[in-house]
Amino acid sequence: MPTISERGQNMPSSPIRKLVPYAEEAKARGVKVYHLNIGQPDIKTPEVAMDAIRNVDMKVVEYSHSAGIESYRKKLAKYYQNLDIQVDHNDLLVTAGGSEAITFAFMSCLNPGDEVIIPEPFYANYNGFAVSAGIVVKPITSCIENGFALPAIEEFEKLITNKTKAIVICNPNNPTGYLYSEEELNQLKEIVIKHDLYLFSDEVYREFCYDGHKHFSAMHLKGIENNVVMFDSVSKRYSECGVRIGTLVTKNKQIIATAMKFAQARLSPPAFGQIAAEASLDTPSSYFDEVYNEYIDRRNFLVEGLNKIEGVYSPMPKGAFYTVARLPIDDSDKFCKWVLSEFSYNNQTVMMAPASGFYSTPGQGKNEVRIAYVLKKEDLATALETLEKALEAYPGRTL
Amino acid sequence: MPTISERGQNMPSSPIRKLVPYAEEAKARGVKVYHLNIGQPDIKTPEVAMDAIRNVDMKVVEYSHSAGIESYRKKLAKYYQNLDIQVDHNDLLVTAGGSEAITFAFMSCLNPGDEVIIPEPFYANYNGFAVSAGIVVKPITSCIENGFALPAIEEFEKLITNKTKAIVICNPNNPTGYLYSEEELNQLKEIVIKHDLYLFSDEVYREFCYDGHKHFSAMHLKGIENNVVMFDSVSKRYSECGVRIGTLVTKNKQIIATAMKFAQARLSPPAFGQIAAEASLDTPSSYFDEVYNEYIDRRNFLVEGLNKIEGVYSPMPKGAFYTVARLPIDDSDKFCKWVLSEFSYNNQTVMMAPASGFYSTPGQGKNEVRIAYVLKKEDLATALETLEKALEAYPGRTL
Repeated sequence: MPTISERGQNMPSSPIRKLVPYAEEAKARGVKVYHLNIGQPDIKTPEVAMDAIRNVDMKVVEYSHSAGIESYRKKLAKYYQNLDIQVDHNDLLVTAGGSEAITFAFMSCLNPGDEVIIPEPFYANYNGFAVSAGIVVKPITSCIENGFALPAIEEFEKLITNKTKAIVICNPNNPTGYLYSEEELNQLKEIVIKHDLYLFSDEVYREFCYDGHKHFSAMHLKGIENNVVMFDSVSKRYSECGVRIGTLVTKNKQIIATAMKFAQARLSPPAFGQIAAEASLDTPSSYFDEVYNEYIDRRNFLVEGLNKIEGVYSPMPKGAFYTVARLPIDDSDKFCKWVLSEFSYNNQTVMMAPASGFYSTPGQGKNEVRIAYVLKKEDLATALETLEKALEAYPGRTL
Repeated sequence: MPTISERGQNMPSSPIRKLVPYAEEAKARGVKVYHLNIGQPDIKTPEVAMDAIRNVDMKVVEYSHSAGIESYRKKLAKYYQNLDIQVDHNDLLVTAGGSEAITFAFMSCLNPGDEVIIPEPFYANYNGFAVSAGIVVKPITSCIENGFALPAIEEFEKLITNKTKAIVICNPNNPTGYLYSEEELNQLKEIVIKHDLYLFSDEVYREFCYDGHKHFSAMHLKGIENNVVMFDSVSKRYSECGVRIGTLVTKNKQIIATAMKFAQARLSPPAFGQIAAEASLDTPSSYFDEVYNEYIDRRNFLVEGLNKIEGVYSPMPKGAFYTVARLPIDDSDKFCKWVLSEFSYNNQTVMMAPASGFYSTPGQGKNEVRIAYVLKKEDLATALETLEKALEAYPGRTL
């Protein structure tokens, strides 16, 4: 039997999914599992999107344009213009989720062996896309003590080699919820200019910025327009993760032309998903107000609740719908598995994502977990209580 | 400005799309263009699929399972079992089109620098997927004289090196319409065993086998179950190219486990597409009878018509809905462009795919074009007449 490829062997398992078998076993034992591990919101998809799908009227579900349906791209460009991101429909490609946008950018801009610097903890699937593209992730550790702010630029400088081709940020950040400031973006701009790097900016949580903070996009940076590639997705904005529609956005015409060749090879993005995504652009602002208030409420409730538990610390995230919390435990991989397989409280338990999977540096994040506040407050309350009881009972408690 | 990657530069443009600007110019001049270049059928998508979409009833469009919705996978496994392909729902992954299935297989089984042997002419996007995965395509030329039958096994042997890891076939074949026989598949089996290779078999045109010929799948081969990976797609079977739903099928558990890691990194296949695809499995057989008869009719009409034109030769394809025809011309790239940009007949013209793009060996296919019979007979009649007139007027005519 021929062998599996090395990159296949090196491909990491998803840290948010490797505990799934334990959760399934818990459910099979009749234990209710609260899912704090995944970014699957329980927020309703906008009615305009569902209506568009229910009113689909076509005889043949044809391939769309490889760059995406033109009417969708035009409307999407207007959405970006309203955010003061000056692009037209030729500056973007519609992709099968944000995932494909990342892959297209890596493939178009980087050669195998090239290095990208990513502040850790970072969205774990960047590792997978890096393995696919044969590129090397150089992590730079951010700290829970300052809420996971951008590490000092000198730390970036230390990592730069002649193989370094890009910096990847996620803003607001998954998993930390950190929102980079305009000042931090400008620090990145300096280093991008100095070393002629690409700046890949994953901004799928743009709408989720709290406490009056305004999102500052990498696309707002002046003078490095050809260096910036933005990744976007409708998944979180409209709570329609399943439609698999993302965007690659850049003013760099060469990248668009190159990514278009990858886009043509896979023919087209999903047709129905594009229809839903296009209709979603007409979502009334009342929807967002409601969602926004709901998330703020949940965030405050969750983070305050976490900090009330003895030995637990979570910064107050300014964006997205995750937080990374430090727990009084020996090893979050062991703990998260133990909570599912050996613990329950009132016949219920919680599933969290061990933070180790979001770090690339071995040993980092061992006492941290990522918690998503995508559940309603009553469920968060039960989950918090369960977590507290679990921490009390856990044999590897360090307090 | 940082540079585009080498693989981005090496990424081929789609041969069926590079003439699109000329077609658009022709249309802008008011010339009607008959599209014989693409595999986008005008056949209606089954009503059951459209009904399922119009009746979608979900509050939140969530991520599906990374391997695909379980009910769909189970029903799909039954569909394969009915074709005597003995798989269950754990032997397959639902993908974003057949394209993603190919990418997952290349990534999971092959290392950068590894070689795959593919009989040419072949589906041009294999080149793109090969560039993405960093693998090398070694073409083996099949000939129009014997209808593009499988080249002699000795020819394969000549190409095998210690880098050779797989053979890729498309059966029935795009672009030639050739249907490999059981005997030919068994010849491939021998060489697969002898050199411990993977056999990747793209069978998306399985339903389109004519003249009483039965499809023999690579999955039917006994004794090499762990070597075979089948690619499938609902695009052509149900004329729903836009839904972007394909499948990777293999009995090799290691490949499934490895491809699953790539599947998890991109989260999930499109939700609405899966709903349409699952419903499509209930398409009444009357639909296929109608489609089948329509394609036979079109094929006979097209191929007979082609062979009546002076200097034109097309074998009679036994499957799919394409044929590769030899024309009395100097260069099909030049000719196909000329037909769009400098020729019209009764204010109409035809768009064909130059066959050069389906060959990997430089210089091959220079006097051949791929023609898809995805248009109704009246349109094919006009297209044939237009082609005949074009050949008479073309300055590079070789007769």
